[in-house]
Amino acid sequence: MTAHAPIALALIDMQNDFVAPGAPACVAGAAATLPALRSLLGLARAQGWAVVHITREHRPDGSDVELFRRRAFQNGQGICVAGTPGADIVPELTPLPGEYRLHKRRFSAFLFTEFDALLRRLGVCTLVLGGTQYPNCIRATAVDAMARDYHTVVVTDACSAQSAEVAAHNVFDLSNMGICCVELANLPELLSAR
Amino acid sequence: MTAHAPIALALIDMQNDFVAPGAPACVAGAAATLPALRSLLGLARAQGWAVVHITREHRPDGSDVELFRRRAFQNGQGICVAGTPGADIVPELTPLPGEYRLHKRRFSAFLFTEFDALLRRLGVCTLVLGGTQYPNCIRATAVDAMARDYHTVVVTDACSAQSAEVAAHNVFDLSNMGICCVELANLPELLSAR
Repeated sequence: MTAHAPIALALIDMQNDFVAPGAPACVAGAAATLPALRSLLGLARAQGWAVVHITREHRPDGSDVELFRRRAFQNGQGICVAGTPGADIVPELTPLPGEYRLHKRRFSAFLFTEFDALLRRLGVCTLVLGGTQYPNCIRATAVDAMARDYHTVVVTDACSAQSAEVAAHNVFDLSNMGICCVELANLPELLSAR
Repeated sequence: MTAHAPIALALIDMQNDFVAPGAPACVAGAAATLPALRSLLGLARAQGWAVVHITREHRPDGSDVELFRRRAFQNGQGICVAGTPGADIVPELTPLPGEYRLHKRRFSAFLFTEFDALLRRLGVCTLVLGGTQYPNCIRATAVDAMARDYHTVVVTDACSAQSAEVAAHNVFDLSNMGICCVELANLPELLSAR
């Protein structure tokens, strides 16, 4: 794969409700990716990439949530409700001033958001992804990025799922659709290869 | 799951280039689903559902194909080129007059097409999917339908992949995101349950 500058890093759904142990929608593998995500974020900052922190946010009544989650909201079990601590980005990945924030309501960061317009305005050609979780928001965002002709890179040890098996199956599928799945240690070499 | 009328059936990518044995992009499991797909199509016609035949079509130069496929087109190995026999729907599933045809250029039938507008105009609430292949066009279309609040049903024995293992992993993920995965034999009962 040939990388094309400029590059953007998007961190997806690294919020307390998905990451904190015992949180209502905790993804089992998410907390373990925090060291890799901190390193990835550090790399992006050192290299001057655009950084976009993407989080899920919902209204308390669930009127903007997927249908299959609506009942949970009606029962007072909503997740990522705007203004609650559960919707906050985990402290380890707190955005710096000047980094982009973007809220989404579906799996894909491209759906019903200005993400594509932002990336185009920034002239981004290569999109690097980390966060949670593999089968849902990571995959939907990666597939939508690939479909929009971004060179799409999923950093495998900076993404998580409920199990290693689910992660592996998704990496298998993503790799078969021209999405580059690479460990963080190999990311600089991948991006410098032209 | 509660079904909501009206219902549409979308058949996806059942084209010679994906289905015919030895075709350039043959999906190993696709031909075996033809009997189930014929039955599913017959059910839809008997029930008066809207039927949408969705196929991939590309320009010969590949200017409208995903980046990861572009080189194949440049090497004269394009697939689903408009006007070629490979782009045609397999004879077993020939559309009837009055059924909808829709061409797409990406995995999801919703991306860069009028599919969502068509379903809204028809008042469709429940979208039933069959075709090929599971990790790519079936899954991307199903996820996009779910995200747009359609009650989404994947008919498991009317969809295919390169292997039964890939199919099973994708059904596992889809089921976890509120998408109903059901065998054809159980579809009428599912849709009548209210």
